[in-house]
Amino acid sequence: MENPLPEKNKRWKIKLHEIIYEADTPAGKLFDVILLVFIIASILLVMLESVASIDLKYHFWLNVGEWIVTVLFTIEYIARVITVKKPWKYIFSFYGIIDLLSTLPKYLSLIFAGTHALVALRALRLLRVFRILKLARYLGASNQLATALKASRAKISVFLFAVVIAATIFGTIMYLVEGEKNGFDNIPKSIYWSIVTLTTVGFGDIAPQTPLGQFIATIIMVLGYGIIAVPTGIVSAEYTRSTNNEEEQKQKKEQSNTVALNTQSCQNCLAENHKDKAEYCYNCGQPLHIK
Amino acid sequence: MENPLPEKNKRWKIKLHEIIYEADTPAGKLFDVILLVFIIASILLVMLESVASIDLKYHFWLNVGEWIVTVLFTIEYIARVITVKKPWKYIFSFYGIIDLLSTLPKYLSLIFAGTHALVALRALRLLRVFRILKLARYLGASNQLATALKASRAKISVFLFAVVIAATIFGTIMYLVEGEKNGFDNIPKSIYWSIVTLTTVGFGDIAPQTPLGQFIATIIMVLGYGIIAVPTGIVSAEYTRSTNNEEEQKQKKEQSNTVALNTQSCQNCLAENHKDKAEYCYNCGQPLHIK
Amino acid sequence: MENPLPEKNKRWKIKLHEIIYEADTPAGKLFDVILLVFIIASILLVMLESVASIDLKYHFWLNVGEWIVTVLFTIEYIARVITVKKPWKYIFSFYGIIDLLSTLPKYLSLIFAGTHALVALRALRLLRVFRILKLARYLGASNQLATALKASRAKISVFLFAVVIAATIFGTIMYLVEGEKNGFDNIPKSIYWSIVTLTTVGFGDIAPQTPLGQFIATIIMVLGYGIIAVPTGIVSAEYTRSTNNEEEQKQKKEQSNTVALNTQSCQNCLAENHKDKAEYCYNCGQPLHIK
Amino acid sequence: MENPLPEKNKRWKIKLHEIIYEADTPAGKLFDVILLVFIIASILLVMLESVASIDLKYHFWLNVGEWIVTVLFTIEYIARVITVKKPWKYIFSFYGIIDLLSTLPKYLSLIFAGTHALVALRALRLLRVFRILKLARYLGASNQLATALKASRAKISVFLFAVVIAATIFGTIMYLVEGEKNGFDNIPKSIYWSIVTLTTVGFGDIAPQTPLGQFIATIIMVLGYGIIAVPTGIVSAEYTRSTNNEEEQKQKKEQSNTVALNTQSCQNCLAENHKDKAEYCYNCGQPLHIK
Repeated sequence: MENPLPEKNKRWKIKLHEIIYEADTPAGKLFDVILLVFIIASILLVMLESVASIDLKYHFWLNVGEWIVTVLFTIEYIARVITVKKPWKYIFSFYGIIDLLSTLPKYLSLIFAGTHALVALRALRLLRVFRILKLARYLGASNQLATALKASRAKISVFLFAVVIAATIFGTIMYLVEGEKNGFDNIPKSIYWSIVTLTTVGFGDIAPQTPLGQFIATIIMVLGYGIIAVPTGIVSAEYTRSTNNEEEQKQKKEQSNTVALNTQSCQNCLAENHKDKAEYCYNCGQPLHIK
Repeated sequence: MENPLPEKNKRWKIKLHEIIYEADTPAGKLFDVILLVFIIASILLVMLESVASIDLKYHFWLNVGEWIVTVLFTIEYIARVITVKKPWKYIFSFYGIIDLLSTLPKYLSLIFAGTHALVALRALRLLRVFRILKLARYLGASNQLATALKASRAKISVFLFAVVIAATIFGTIMYLVEGEKNGFDNIPKSIYWSIVTLTTVGFGDIAPQTPLGQFIATIIMVLGYGIIAVPTGIVSAEYTRSTNNEEEQKQKKEQSNTVALNTQSCQNCLAENHKDKAEYCYNCGQPLHIK
Repeated sequence: MENPLPEKNKRWKIKLHEIIYEADTPAGKLFDVILLVFIIASILLVMLESVASIDLKYHFWLNVGEWIVTVLFTIEYIARVITVKKPWKYIFSFYGIIDLLSTLPKYLSLIFAGTHALVALRALRLLRVFRILKLARYLGASNQLATALKASRAKISVFLFAVVIAATIFGTIMYLVEGEKNGFDNIPKSIYWSIVTLTTVGFGDIAPQTPLGQFIATIIMVLGYGIIAVPTGIVSAEYTRSTNNEEEQKQKKEQSNTVALNTQSCQNCLAENHKDKAEYCYNCGQPLHIK
Repeated sequence: MENPLPEKNKRWKIKLHEIIYEADTPAGKLFDVILLVFIIASILLVMLESVASIDLKYHFWLNVGEWIVTVLFTIEYIARVITVKKPWKYIFSFYGIIDLLSTLPKYLSLIFAGTHALVALRALRLLRVFRILKLARYLGASNQLATALKASRAKISVFLFAVVIAATIFGTIMYLVEGEKNGFDNIPKSIYWSIVTLTTVGFGDIAPQTPLGQFIATIIMVLGYGIIAVPTGIVSAEYTRSTNNEEEQKQKKEQSNTVALNTQSCQNCLAENHKDKAEYCYNCGQPLHIK
């Protein structure tokens, strides 16, 4: 099948796109692994820097490491922008914004003092791991999880919604009962305490002092302890159902597994989840491979 | 079908009743949405007021907002009382009392100083959200939840009952073991601590200091950790069963779903959950619609 | 059927036995309800006494109440001893010891000062509720619970055993890492902390201060968070299975339910769970009813 | 069947190997029970020593006990090394290293002061309990548990991985929001706090102070509360499935149970899990029994 694209885009751009955005060539896999290593390294750097005693001792080397990582991330960012046909689509995509946020602060820190701490935003790049994970054999497991969670999403929303309403009502009541003198300074803080209690976290930075407040706290705690059963029951039931369905439809599953392992990403519109033998993007019709 | 009611009640009352109490006309839906917005706005107002620094700055505007909300709620309350045939039934209903409690304190604060804080009781109006939610597509999900919870209610009661007994016994023992000097001032407070521990909340405002007390605490914690499995298992099993039943009886379900979406409320006796095509209240026999 | 017993035992003893130990006559049910009310009242008394401010004010009346309860409990205890054929069997039974422990301390407080606090041991009488509960309609629910728990007992034991071993190992390691200066005074206390952490209670009275300690704590917490899934999964699965079995064997269940509702208790050997139409004790062969 | 081994190895070595490493002879079972008692005794000794007040009083006797235990453990260690054909395989095995670690520190404390605390490492020997447990009737239960856990391993890994990533991202954000002045000294500590919160442990040694920090904490807590449902659901579903499979394949199970109860351990290569009637090691071909 002839296609006119290679003439329009430079061939190396297409190659680079395949390496950076996809993971079904050895080069693409290698790139993803190296990227993962650098993301983790960059986050370790930020962590070490934040520890005052370590920063004091090794400030120079940490700074050098920072610049190396920043320059490499900049190159990656530029490469991503160049190789995509519609750069704005990448730039304003979720990962595009995170990539920019994790690269920019180091440069800004040259101009504005005090913005250096924002380098820590780079931790958000860890989210890319989920994209890269598609490589791994854990894919099946995370797919099953995702299915069960998606199926129970609506129910868990209703549940969390009820938790928030309960927290608001209990928080307000506790504010009236305990008041400022016992640490329940205002209603938002009381609601924060209610959620700390309902979720059985229980920091103890604020704790009821009056007998009535402790009695209401008891009700909140038993309620929180009881309702934790609800989301668990939902996910458990959905998961059981999804694994049962799976066994019944094993053929379909095998097929869908192969589809999921396809890491093609259209160079034109960044669409993913192409069929295994897809030659053209299902979204924009552009060819996916260089022939 | 002729019915003599419209002559007796003024027509606008019936219209208003349909708008305020029901949600199957566009006007009824709009009313519910506006009400929801005002409830949330009124709660945000109370929250902001409770934050000292914000109240200091914007006291005047918050107060203006309070009065607007209060007047609107008063109008709604009066409208609710007027449009129902038997006003006392509404006034002494659960929502009727809450509506009154959330409107009255602002007026009382004019007469009695110090009662202003009771405005916060308005947070209880959030419960009306569950009534309004009937509109939303989340209904199906919350219905399933409700079914599973109802089915496991008796078992969860027994369970919570056992938790309370365990807490009482352990609380008393800890009071004897630790005593006043370690913060276990009296038995009710020790029971409060027991529940804090059994439910794995663990504030830490009170904590056992003696080796024996810590040993008993260990038993309480492991017990609490172990028995959290019980309600979860119950809800999970009930939920699995209810979803299984559902799939088997899908036809019945579709039918019941339509019934559930029926938001008719009898003007005469406030009965709800009428059949989808019901023309007359199943409870008092009054017609539900104006022909 | 002739039997020679009524001549030997005085008839009123047998009647009294039926009232006190059983619950299938109106008098027996009434006795159990009154007993339950008195147990709860006696525990409320102890609670109120333990609150210093209340005790100061109402010491006299609380003391009067105490003596009334104590005398009544004494009469009940004597009646129980008299009406059973083999009194020692009751006296050294679980409930017999509790009944004694909850009656004696008040008398002892007359002789020895300082033993009054032991009155609180009476809270243990709450356990009798489980016996009395047999009356209630919640029986079915609690039976199902008991079945599921019994079925998963061995597995939960293994699980709790593993939790204790993990707590011991982690506690020892934390003692080595954190040491006395950070509150991990000795190994038992460190193990106590480990269990506080593994069970996600987290009092915070002791908390790791060193980076290494915090890292190990992280592992303990994630482990604790992960393994809470295990008992839940077990109970959930067992419970699902038991409810499935039930539906399959509904006939058998109905039969067993009747058996469970039989509250006959042999006057001779205190054996329970007699068959519904049993005339003679399955254990010692004595007749159960007065003909 | 003739085999030439007994001539090569001294007969007593083979006997001793069977006693120490296996548990299907009365002597072997006795050895395991005695070993278990000594392990627990040795750990109790370490615990008592760590309690300053007890150590002060009974230092001499505790020290004597320590030396008895240490000498016995040394003999056991030497016996284990001698009776295995390839000693290095044992010495560098998991249990070999633990056995050495729990014996050596006492000797080292003679030479180097301050190393005595390392005696506590002996707590790791508790892990051997799992090996010895093979004796007990709880084996079936723990096998089922192990199966369910193994089946859900991949999914729980993905889940824990997601928890760690979430903790890193939230920890970094909280470090930026709260900063050093509120106890979030550096990013690792913030991540530690995030995990304390996500797992609902909630020590409260660090707690957010700013309204924004408390708001983010609320999200983390609700998230943590919600996602605890995931591993529970997984284990529950897997466990249900595994018990269902079991009932279907009861014959296979009975067979596998017998296999699991086989505690043969090859003297040559330490391989375990031999078939019930195995005469030769499946791994290295050496005979398992002395004929």
